[in-house]
Amino acid sequence: MKVGILGAGQLGRMLALSALQLGLTPCLFDPDPQACGLIASHSTSAPYNDRQALTTFAQGLDVCTYEFENVPIEAAALVSNLCPLRPGLPALEVSQDRLTEKQFLQSCGLTTTDFLPLNPGDPIPPGGLLKTRRLGYDGKGQGTDWSHLPDQPALWERWVPLQKEVAQIAIRSLSGEIHFYPLIQTIQSQGILREAIAPAPDLRPELHQQARQAAQTVLERLDYVGVLALEFFLVDDQLIVNEMAPRVHNSGHWTDRGSHTSQFENHLRAILGWPLGSTAILQPSRLINLVGEVPFPPPPGAHIYGKSPRPGRKLGHITLFTEPT
Amino acid sequence: MKVGILGAGQLGRMLALSALQLGLTPCLFDPDPQACGLIASHSTSAPYNDRQALTTFAQGLDVCTYEFENVPIEAAALVSNLCPLRPGLPALEVSQDRLTEKQFLQSCGLTTTDFLPLNPGDPIPPGGLLKTRRLGYDGKGQGTDWSHLPDQPALWERWVPLQKEVAQIAIRSLSGEIHFYPLIQTIQSQGILREAIAPAPDLRPELHQQARQAAQTVLERLDYVGVLALEFFLVDDQLIVNEMAPRVHNSGHWTDRGSHTSQFENHLRAILGWPLGSTAILQPSRLINLVGEVPFPPPPGAHIYGKSPRPGRKLGHITLFTEPT
Repeated sequence: MKVGILGAGQLGRMLALSALQLGLTPCLFDPDPQACGLIASHSTSAPYNDRQALTTFAQGLDVCTYEFENVPIEAAALVSNLCPLRPGLPALEVSQDRLTEKQFLQSCGLTTTDFLPLNPGDPIPPGGLLKTRRLGYDGKGQGTDWSHLPDQPALWERWVPLQKEVAQIAIRSLSGEIHFYPLIQTIQSQGILREAIAPAPDLRPELHQQARQAAQTVLERLDYVGVLALEFFLVDDQLIVNEMAPRVHNSGHWTDRGSHTSQFENHLRAILGWPLGSTAILQPSRLINLVGEVPFPPPPGAHIYGKSPRPGRKLGHITLFTEPT
Repeated sequence: MKVGILGAGQLGRMLALSALQLGLTPCLFDPDPQACGLIASHSTSAPYNDRQALTTFAQGLDVCTYEFENVPIEAAALVSNLCPLRPGLPALEVSQDRLTEKQFLQSCGLTTTDFLPLNPGDPIPPGGLLKTRRLGYDGKGQGTDWSHLPDQPALWERWVPLQKEVAQIAIRSLSGEIHFYPLIQTIQSQGILREAIAPAPDLRPELHQQARQAAQTVLERLDYVGVLALEFFLVDDQLIVNEMAPRVHNSGHWTDRGSHTSQFENHLRAILGWPLGSTAILQPSRLINLVGEVPFPPPPGAHIYGKSPRPGRKLGHITLFTEPT
């Protein structure tokens, strides 16, 4: 069976490896011919506005997914006319714009930080941070004044005194079955995920339950199929939703070795309409991202993405089992 | 770094997946254009006697290995003149012929079954089995009379009343460091591995030690680099060497999830001259081969090789953790 993946960064690459392990044929599409995910024999490199290339790519796929939320809607829509696209367009539309996303999350009854849409040059309220509405990731497109941002509409978000950050990865099957990985503590630095600890330690049981409920609401509202991540701030011992990611998520890379079924396999199982695998944890795990450089030779068990090194770039990860046997 | 793999069956495929995970570029070579391991973007399909294709394949490789012992010596020798070939030619030469292999194992001081080289038509002693000297695998090329065998020299082996079968997988680094996976019980049916249990239960501690010692002797005698498997019969509570496999081994597929470092990664680490990873077990594991057919959809965690189904053909495997958490 042929599974299309729009985007061939490290997430596309890991999805492709998982697809190969399941005996599937991954077909990757990325505008960058150097994209690290273009590892499989079925790889296409063309711009997202190359309708002919997208059509050729999509024809004959059994299902298609995307590795990140910034795939242009027009490209995703074209593909979705030729084969099932999962998760669908609504999840993509909601999460491409920080304003739309916050409004959607609030409409789900979830608490977000205070926010205010602003246009370039608008006065900036104190006590917050400006973020571009589109195409921000890994701390890029953020600042405290307009000089640090592109000349585009932005979103001001009130700063919150966060105690820690956590992420909930959940998955919904085609038939509506929902499974949850344990809540994960994430440790960021300069806007980049550095470490993830699973399960997140020292949290009231109610918070685990609330995070699951929040993810379930989002999944059901979007009639979502596949893996979804919700990122939370913990403030005054309460969860505040920071953002959603309609895809496999960096905080879940430990599931490849630390849980019964990895987030990658479960995402594929969901979009193929297969029964999901257990999300139970095998080993309490600690994920360490390799950022900017990778040791050579890599430590045993490391996952290296084959990207050229650059400061602040995620190049690989390693999963440590926190209770070694 | 480019790692060449001669042979692209399921073992080549799993080595390639492991190489990709380590950020390496696997380059596969197989005469069969449908070989299931030809998944990576660097794949060559040409006959083993196509010297030009082999030369093009080998040039620019950092190191080359083989996925099985029946790669023609001439092809392996050609490659070994262009890049390091690990394990080297001696392991290949010894293990391509059952007679040479038995004689070598005896010269290492190991106990084998009684054997007798025979030519077609020679009288067959009672109480044993005829096996082709070359190209036998998965129970093929075996029989009790000449009518079941090709018209070639064969080896008669005395039947032994075996209690069980076990396999020792060991690995030797370029610097001579040796690590051992736990001894594995293997369960065969019609000459095909069906299940493997790690660690092998109910064995005297001395047997674990003897199996390691046997593997160490073979590794050092051959100045071997990479993963080696030794298969044993247990007879009268004593180990008798059945055969050696100079490669990653079916009985070790559980190491992908059940040990700290998989046999595939450790084989690659060894041939690249990197320090080995821990061979410690993470979870007592039970490997089940999927032979002849695979359930659809595959069970969670299954590894499916993408081969066309055929009776008696190994199509995939699944690792069960025998003490679920």
